[in-house]
Amino acid sequence: MYFAVIGTHVRGKSASPAMHNASFKTLGINAVYIALDVPREELPCFLQLARLNLRGFNVTIPHKEEVVKYLDSVAADARAIGAVNTVLVERNLLVGYNTDASALYQLASSHMKGADVLIVGAGGAARAALFAAIKAEARAVYITNRTYERAEALAREFAEKFKREVKAVRGPVKADVVINATPVYDAVVADLSGASLYVDFAYIPTPRTKMVEEAQRLGIKVIDGVDLLVEQGAQAEKIWLGVEPDRTVMKRAVLEFLGI
Amino acid sequence: MYFAVIGTHVRGKSASPAMHNASFKTLGINAVYIALDVPREELPCFLQLARLNLRGFNVTIPHKEEVVKYLDSVAADARAIGAVNTVLVERNLLVGYNTDASALYQLASSHMKGADVLIVGAGGAARAALFAAIKAEARAVYITNRTYERAEALAREFAEKFKREVKAVRGPVKADVVINATPVYDAVVADLSGASLYVDFAYIPTPRTKMVEEAQRLGIKVIDGVDLLVEQGAQAEKIWLGVEPDRTVMKRAVLEFLGI
Repeated sequence: MYFAVIGTHVRGKSASPAMHNASFKTLGINAVYIALDVPREELPCFLQLARLNLRGFNVTIPHKEEVVKYLDSVAADARAIGAVNTVLVERNLLVGYNTDASALYQLASSHMKGADVLIVGAGGAARAALFAAIKAEARAVYITNRTYERAEALAREFAEKFKREVKAVRGPVKADVVINATPVYDAVVADLSGASLYVDFAYIPTPRTKMVEEAQRLGIKVIDGVDLLVEQGAQAEKIWLGVEPDRTVMKRAVLEFLGI
Repeated sequence: MYFAVIGTHVRGKSASPAMHNASFKTLGINAVYIALDVPREELPCFLQLARLNLRGFNVTIPHKEEVVKYLDSVAADARAIGAVNTVLVERNLLVGYNTDASALYQLASSHMKGADVLIVGAGGAARAALFAAIKAEARAVYITNRTYERAEALAREFAEKFKREVKAVRGPVKADVVINATPVYDAVVADLSGASLYVDFAYIPTPRTKMVEEAQRLGIKVIDGVDLLVEQGAQAEKIWLGVEPDRTVMKRAVLEFLGI
């Protein structure tokens, strides 16, 4: 069986091959997971090759939203999110899921319930974070983004879709839970003072992003990019293989790959 | 590093992944080799993905001739043959080689020198066999094929190209060396009486083809599909990695994959 992650800067950089290949080995499953750089214009043809050759694949930046329209069916939550990071290939049919959202919900829902949540970013990961926060019944949900208009459009889309308030904000906003849903790792992207939880999607080149270090300095609980990568990967394997993989094996493989 | 074999019926059937992955492991090279089914219409896009992601790949039925026109450069012998089975990806450039021909030459040239050679088939493998026979200075070279016109066209092409006689024949012809360059494994495709060597390209689902058994019954020396697969694979690794792989490791892995 073959599996892959596709994006535009994943080959040799993504830790997913190391993580899943270690998990397959532990599970005794004869499978190989690779990372493939797929330019946007080659996405349709990659998907044709995937139908014929893969059992499943992950989708990362910049394809998480674009891929949705090529799929044969999409799980309800992924459809609502408007982004897919996990695809199951079932009898040549492509079925989309979003395990970014389910992983974040699994790891952070207790902190988000009734709390103010600030999401930094407006791409596929931000969509997953928004869904998890709304599902966790966050009190207030704010979005901030380098390009304000994209934050505004995303806030309006999710407010309408989920019939609740979602606000785009400019500049610093205090929140109980702050989520970095961008690949930015070397800059402080939000004010963490007063927060109880900081979540970071970024783990390349390191999960110790500037914001993770800032949060640890302030004594704030951290869910970093490796924690998220492992959980979304474990949930993807559950979809692909119906197994409950060993997350410690997966995390060890990621840290080893990252040289930590 | 990633490697692959592409064709239209290779995934799960080709022994090349087992062979090369065993070799990489023995050589201590961190590389993965997979088998991908690529329909003709997806060949151009696969090649774009190959430029970005692979270090090399093999090409098998039905793409050995078709692929040539998409390559950035082609080794002289492969150009003359008009078929490529091995591609090196060098700084995103696709460079074509034909290790089918060099493998057959390596294994059978001494038998073909000054001998009458009969080649069954008119596809990419037949082209490689023709080149090897001509290079080995065979006395007479005959081609026979289910579709006689294709044998005729191929004979004319190679006769002109190499300024020597190459004859298309119908029906049984006696030859010293008989080469099955088709995937046919379950039928007797030529008269072996009087031959000193029988060569068979076919190894799926088994290298013990009807003709190999017939040759063994007649006490004729046999070079079977596994011998050829290993030699062309070893020569491909030399092109990709500059190594001299252990052919016994490769052969053991192929036989194990085939359950022999």
